[in-house]
Amino acid sequence: MRELRKEISRFISERDWEQFHSPKNLAMALSVEVAEIVEHFQWLTEEQSRNPPPETLAELREEIGDVLIYLTELAEKLGTDPVEAAKVKLEINNRKYPATLVRGKADKYTKYE
Amino acid sequence: MRELRKEISRFISERDWEQFHSPKNLAMALSVEVAEIVEHFQWLTEEQSRNPPPETLAELREEIGDVLIYLTELAEKLGTDPVEAAKVKLEINNRKYPATLVRGKADKYTKYE
Amino acid sequence: MRELRKEISRFISERDWEQFHSPKNLAMALSVEVAEIVEHFQWLTEEQSRNPPPETLAELREEIGDVLIYLTELAEKLGTDPVEAAKVKLEINNRKYPATLVRGKADKYTKYE
Amino acid sequence: MRELRKEISRFISERDWEQFHSPKNLAMALSVEVAEIVEHFQWLTEEQSRNPPPETLAELREEIGDVLIYLTELAEKLGTDPVEAAKVKLEINNRKYPATLVRGKADKYTKYE
Repeated sequence: MRELRKEISRFISERDWEQFHSPKNLAMALSVEVAEIVEHFQWLTEEQSRNPPPETLAELREEIGDVLIYLTELAEKLGTDPVEAAKVKLEINNRKYPATLVRGKADKYTKYE
Repeated sequence: MRELRKEISRFISERDWEQFHSPKNLAMALSVEVAEIVEHFQWLTEEQSRNPPPETLAELREEIGDVLIYLTELAEKLGTDPVEAAKVKLEINNRKYPATLVRGKADKYTKYE
Repeated sequence: MRELRKEISRFISERDWEQFHSPKNLAMALSVEVAEIVEHFQWLTEEQSRNPPPETLAELREEIGDVLIYLTELAEKLGTDPVEAAKVKLEINNRKYPATLVRGKADKYTKYE
Repeated sequence: MRELRKEISRFISERDWEQFHSPKNLAMALSVEVAEIVEHFQWLTEEQSRNPPPETLAELREEIGDVLIYLTELAEKLGTDPVEAAKVKLEINNRKYPATLVRGKADKYTKYE
């Protein structure tokens, strides 16, 4: 991750794109990349989505890469480490959704969220 | 990241939520979490978005965590390492947007994308 | 629709919110409202999504309203009539996806889109 | 709008696409189309977004059409009239954000939302 952060910084500064990459714009770009993932799954059944064909998989890989690039950059701009943030959030979720209460229930999940 | 992946797996299996977490559903959840980031920025100017107030920052941190959790889980389901995918994508972008051509230009950026 | 457009204009101008409602910001707000619709469906099966419980339905109705409000406002800002735009687009789609070719096929659909 | 609804129904049934158009899938498709609008604005300033170049405007018009098509179809599936839903929601917003309290304030807006 540290290496990735450095490569992203270099990529942006070499192109002088810092000026366009406000957190507001990065949030928009992040949502656009996520929609490209959603697009692949919109007409598939859940079952089909578990085994996408190879060319879809290759495209999904690129888009997952794009999402992580923008997420890392946004987190950096806001002074946050995304991996650290994810661990803290998992801790919060552990307390918020006690396994004994929500086990196997999607509605509890939805309701508590 | 490896540790994060393990903690996510444990979190899901303890709750028996694997059944709900098809790639299709994870893509939807990912887009919902990203929208929560977008929501914080929608009425701010780009300038204001560079310095969000502390309570907004705390919430953004949680949502960045959520995005990375779902992204990691989705990548795992598709047999992909998100950090590796991001590095490969940066390489592709390096060739696609030559610094000499796109330097300081948002429109080139948009057009080539 | 004409009446709706007028009511939206009055709502905005009474609050002096015109200054915040640039097309850029309206596009963000639109995406946030759509995500609130997606959120209701993320853990449901397709079958369940066809018959949401009454309280979910009531919330979905509000969010569909929000989406149409922002869409109408955005279209107005860009000098477009959304109903006219939809009819034109349907015409384009009629030619792009000939019924004889794509009948009953989601993959054709996805591929041509 | 009534005419639009009829044309959409015919378009779908001629292609036998009803089977793919569950509310869940339509919500996903709606979010994908909205992201195509967001994509046009992501690197523009708010000021620039108020005057997009003609070719961008033409594309935005198509995407606004797509959003209204999916929104209308989703609303129909859920037994809702989107224009009616928007009017009801405007009424709710009128009470929720009293003009005297929120006049010219984006933060009140955000906070109450």
